[in-house]
Amino acid sequence: MSTPVIAGAHTVPFVKESDHVVDLGSDAVRGLLSSTGIDRAAIDAVISASVMGGSLLGQKILGRLSLTGRPVFNVENACASGASAAHLAVGMVRSGQARVVLVVAAERLSALGGGALPLDPTDVEAAQGAIMPALYAMRASRYLWENDLQPSDLALVSVKNRANGALNPIARLQAKVTLDEVLESKPVADPLTLLQCCPNSDGASAILVCSEDAAKELGLDAVTIAASVITSGVFSEGPRDLTSPDITVRAINEAYAAAGIGPSDIDLAEVHDAFSIAEILYIETLGLCERGGGARYVADGRANIDGDVAMNPSGGLISRGHPVGATGVAQLAEAYDQLLGRAGARQVPGASVALTHVTGGGIAGVDNGACGVHVLTV
Amino acid sequence: MSTPVIAGAHTVPFVKESDHVVDLGSDAVRGLLSSTGIDRAAIDAVISASVMGGSLLGQKILGRLSLTGRPVFNVENACASGASAAHLAVGMVRSGQARVVLVVAAERLSALGGGALPLDPTDVEAAQGAIMPALYAMRASRYLWENDLQPSDLALVSVKNRANGALNPIARLQAKVTLDEVLESKPVADPLTLLQCCPNSDGASAILVCSEDAAKELGLDAVTIAASVITSGVFSEGPRDLTSPDITVRAINEAYAAAGIGPSDIDLAEVHDAFSIAEILYIETLGLCERGGGARYVADGRANIDGDVAMNPSGGLISRGHPVGATGVAQLAEAYDQLLGRAGARQVPGASVALTHVTGGGIAGVDNGACGVHVLTV
Repeated sequence: MSTPVIAGAHTVPFVKESDHVVDLGSDAVRGLLSSTGIDRAAIDAVISASVMGGSLLGQKILGRLSLTGRPVFNVENACASGASAAHLAVGMVRSGQARVVLVVAAERLSALGGGALPLDPTDVEAAQGAIMPALYAMRASRYLWENDLQPSDLALVSVKNRANGALNPIARLQAKVTLDEVLESKPVADPLTLLQCCPNSDGASAILVCSEDAAKELGLDAVTIAASVITSGVFSEGPRDLTSPDITVRAINEAYAAAGIGPSDIDLAEVHDAFSIAEILYIETLGLCERGGGARYVADGRANIDGDVAMNPSGGLISRGHPVGATGVAQLAEAYDQLLGRAGARQVPGASVALTHVTGGGIAGVDNGACGVHVLTV
Repeated sequence: MSTPVIAGAHTVPFVKESDHVVDLGSDAVRGLLSSTGIDRAAIDAVISASVMGGSLLGQKILGRLSLTGRPVFNVENACASGASAAHLAVGMVRSGQARVVLVVAAERLSALGGGALPLDPTDVEAAQGAIMPALYAMRASRYLWENDLQPSDLALVSVKNRANGALNPIARLQAKVTLDEVLESKPVADPLTLLQCCPNSDGASAILVCSEDAAKELGLDAVTIAASVITSGVFSEGPRDLTSPDITVRAINEAYAAAGIGPSDIDLAEVHDAFSIAEILYIETLGLCERGGGARYVADGRANIDGDVAMNPSGGLISRGHPVGATGVAQLAEAYDQLLGRAGARQVPGASVALTHVTGGGIAGVDNGACGVHVLTV
């Protein structure tokens, strides 16, 4: 069976506002075609990921580029849309349905006019205010109480990720921030302040998922997809352990097993730091430290680019931005660049194993989450 | 590599109006679980298809059924959404990503309040009136002119399909109609009258796509998926040959090649008769007769259930209804029942090879179509 690889990646700069989601997606694909220099005829199939992109977005993007003619699929899985598209591309490559799959993910969150994603009117908990910032704030409060910590212990994640983002030309927020600036920024949901929340963004990213053989034939630099896992379910099962994200726990364990690796093998991880507390919980879920030790891991510099495991060297969602459906592919693009030593000022030295992680949905008690974890190696 | 099969199918009755798309989908899955009697734990992954179902529809359906916990993917491809979900399920089974995939497709078109799907504001041709009924009317006019035929030659498709639908308990329209009734029904877009257009419908269907081995282990009756093809592109390439549907031509040719069959092998076909003219064009595209001979093929009874090749024995879109994203899976469910001799009064005698076909998008000149063709065998 064909070994799946990523053989090219391009992410457009993430911005506060853009004109059209088709422009975003086609710019990402244009950049990918240009950077890989591949013959367009080599692309067998296309998977497009978006939450709000509307019907047949992938076909519209291809139409713009005169790339029409190959099979196109449009995939949605909330914040895990991009990772889900990559997973389905892996299936197509491994099954022989396609040798070279273009995965493009695009989202124009500015279409919401600065507001939040519309709530499902049947979700009674969300209607009571249990939306993302509030839910993560509850997790944060619980975490601080369990571990006898202070809000400043969370805020250090933003300081680190904004510093990383300052080294990333495509990041939405390019300025470093101090701990005081994070703590003194507008309160959103106690203990989370504005600078601990990822900014709404527009953005797009594209990667080529193909068989190892196809990458060689096309003369492309490739990284191996050693694991591709999607899980669904609630954030936490049972009586809701707020600081143990169930679908992420399962996805990471499955990915470690599939790739034959463990926490000590990872050089860098792009995780779903939608809020500062999230990165801390995912550091622990990755097994990089004991439970309750995630904040200390950050404070000690072990999550820095030159630390033990570089957490979100791209700047993460907090700095790069979070155009929902596009984030998962942008993470894979970052990992691709890092593993090939092309990450410029934010390069993780000697990186050979990268993990990416997105998780979405799962608001309150509704059984509707989705989580994606990939392990890439060179 | 695992041979993919369909090992269970259930379609809920298609109706004019229903309450909630999650109800539709969960009713279909409940029926599938009940008819197959499988252990819920056997389901490895889920693909949900819908155009208007909203974010995380598949997860919501599973949540309703306490089936949460396995990976779920939400797929959209206009009228080809259901077929696209089946295609991706085939990839997951063949690649080993999953052994048993639940495919559920649900659409609540009544959410539009009887109106049409919202137009893409950037589609200048649609804004001028080039919407589906108008486009098919142009194809119909051209077809009649090319072949020196009368509107009654088209209308016979509706007479046949409504007669088939009268034998199908889940069809949205259960009454037979006469040729005069079809011709005298309200004009929609000349020469197409109301009874030559598929009715807006709500509906859902679910199938199990799994490996042949898994079906045997689970003790399920299975039909082989001998071909699963998705194409994209415009309805007709170049100077628009209105009576040769390009993406369907390509999909059927690829499916014949993949399955190692030709037109003479097919016992029944469920094709995308969104309008009467459509079935005629697809009869020709299938190669069941020469080009221009499709209307005669119908008039001679060769497309009847007891004819040469039963065309739309379920009643097709014209009678069963067309809940956009659900149609492709409902066709596969019909083919499954037919090949296992379970189609009751509409059973095609001795059916051993079935073909299903959906095609969507591709309005006017926009490069945004999608077409799905499957070949099933026993």
